[in-house]
Amino acid sequence: MSKLINNKTEIVADFMRGLKQSHPDLDVDIENRVVYRKTPAVGDKVALVSGGGSGHEPLHSGFVGLGMLDAACMGEVFTSPTPQQIVRAIEKVSTSAGVLLIVKNYAGDIMNFEIAAERAERNGIKVRSVTIDDDVAGGKLPSDGGRGMGLTVFAEKILGAAAENGMSLDGLCELGQDLRTRGRSMGIGMSSCTHPVAGVPTFELGEDEIEVGIGIHGEPGWRRARAGSAQDTAKLLVESILAELAAPEQSSFIVLVNGMGGTPLIELYVMAGEIHRELIERGHSVDRYLVGSHITSLEMAGCSLTLLQSDAESLKYWDAPVSTPALNWGVAA
Amino acid sequence: MSKLINNKTEIVADFMRGLKQSHPDLDVDIENRVVYRKTPAVGDKVALVSGGGSGHEPLHSGFVGLGMLDAACMGEVFTSPTPQQIVRAIEKVSTSAGVLLIVKNYAGDIMNFEIAAERAERNGIKVRSVTIDDDVAGGKLPSDGGRGMGLTVFAEKILGAAAENGMSLDGLCELGQDLRTRGRSMGIGMSSCTHPVAGVPTFELGEDEIEVGIGIHGEPGWRRARAGSAQDTAKLLVESILAELAAPEQSSFIVLVNGMGGTPLIELYVMAGEIHRELIERGHSVDRYLVGSHITSLEMAGCSLTLLQSDAESLKYWDAPVSTPALNWGVAA
Repeated sequence: MSKLINNKTEIVADFMRGLKQSHPDLDVDIENRVVYRKTPAVGDKVALVSGGGSGHEPLHSGFVGLGMLDAACMGEVFTSPTPQQIVRAIEKVSTSAGVLLIVKNYAGDIMNFEIAAERAERNGIKVRSVTIDDDVAGGKLPSDGGRGMGLTVFAEKILGAAAENGMSLDGLCELGQDLRTRGRSMGIGMSSCTHPVAGVPTFELGEDEIEVGIGIHGEPGWRRARAGSAQDTAKLLVESILAELAAPEQSSFIVLVNGMGGTPLIELYVMAGEIHRELIERGHSVDRYLVGSHITSLEMAGCSLTLLQSDAESLKYWDAPVSTPALNWGVAA
Repeated sequence: MSKLINNKTEIVADFMRGLKQSHPDLDVDIENRVVYRKTPAVGDKVALVSGGGSGHEPLHSGFVGLGMLDAACMGEVFTSPTPQQIVRAIEKVSTSAGVLLIVKNYAGDIMNFEIAAERAERNGIKVRSVTIDDDVAGGKLPSDGGRGMGLTVFAEKILGAAAENGMSLDGLCELGQDLRTRGRSMGIGMSSCTHPVAGVPTFELGEDEIEVGIGIHGEPGWRRARAGSAQDTAKLLVESILAELAAPEQSSFIVLVNGMGGTPLIELYVMAGEIHRELIERGHSVDRYLVGSHITSLEMAGCSLTLLQSDAESLKYWDAPVSTPALNWGVAA
């Protein structure tokens, strides 16, 4: 299958040009691959910076704007941004209140964001980070714990709203750690995806197979299984997550039913209905749903589920106004 | 590739259950496959009803809510809703100001919406329709003129806002006819899609082939071509549309860069950048962009472009508050 691209080494720059044209509130630094708010946040608001490999859109660049990120830096497809890029993103938006980095738990991202944080601090900028490692399948793989998945979207929304509300850098770190303990994800893949430079699918799946515990880089999961019904898949995801999440009885959740990029919305809402049933049957309840393709793996078919135990604080920040390319609500016209 | 469904004849009902759980502002009549606003529009607002085959989500059910549709009725996948369903949708939301039907130009839809309108009128409801037939490739096919494509999204947004603003049924019909003359679409496919009941792809495409002038039901287009760059594709779409749209020099547009369901956002924004360049090079300008998968063909890879010549009235209604599952902006918290 062909792709809607020009030169395959220029995809990220071409994407950024289109993003800027489409969203006049954003500006881009093409050379350093940084997307940032055209109008900087005012006063002593902590600036939020995230980033990572490209190919997961709308994450992160689609979450730049009022109520979420101040800047996002984009690596090449499925490749960490360099420390230099991250430093430029930090410098672009830093304020006297400091900068919070939201970093997904992948070795390259962790390393490069750490180097960048050290450099920025040497230049007098106050920098702290929150690592997102919500994937319950990650612990079953020979890797460094849970990978960063859908909880990243929740962290960017909730911490973004808290920062907009004047929360301090220390407060945001604490809230970020709290989110980490209360949120978990898992995904399944129904097809591979094709890295534009490699040009061939990363792996092959049989017609009736799914890859359980898939990552977001087209990498295989921790086991292969026969494809079941939406109900089977919902049960598998809910059970796997609840087994790792120390959620008390009658918990309530914010739920992300996320498409991996190539799964149509009709299937995601079928899954939302089944996930709802699974949670209710276990005595839990759901406060908010977000259904759509928010953290993707190019055109991979499949979905991931993220459950975040909600409380008054997280709901308040979840419901707060947001105005970004991908999430947009509650902002007066 | 497997699908995230249960029983393949129950997809639409399962989807509706998930939609209702996820969006508390909506209610559903599962038996008649109608999605409608839980809180009806007040007073003498004209009610807007649309619908069609399923498999194009978020169209139409994802556009039910404040500022867009009052109700949508869902046929089976790629199948027109029955007159009975449409009558139920009309009855559910009709007001003394009347009901406007937004109908995509497909033989089954046209026939069933007409029958439903007649029945509702016999029951004393004032009903008018606008037919959307914006596909420029449609005229090259042995069909009844242009098929309804991306202009449907614009019509639902702009007429929805105008209705919310108190426009009369006659006024809405006139504005709808005006939109028809000012908007055109065309699409290309890079893969087929698989109807869940048929279980096999509707057609096969070679690795480097695209289907030009694709419809939204997995049907082939009017010719097959070699896949080119994003720039080539943007040029083809812009030229084809401008050849059919009597747009004066230095026109300005509202632009929809639409994914067919299986194309990742990174590619759609690459296309947005190229389409922008093509329009600017021809002396035109763009007032607003909408980039995303809004009228889809299950998991088909590909995209469509819709150009609507903008003016002060259409921009006013485009920018007006909207609160639906798929489009959501400018509504105070």
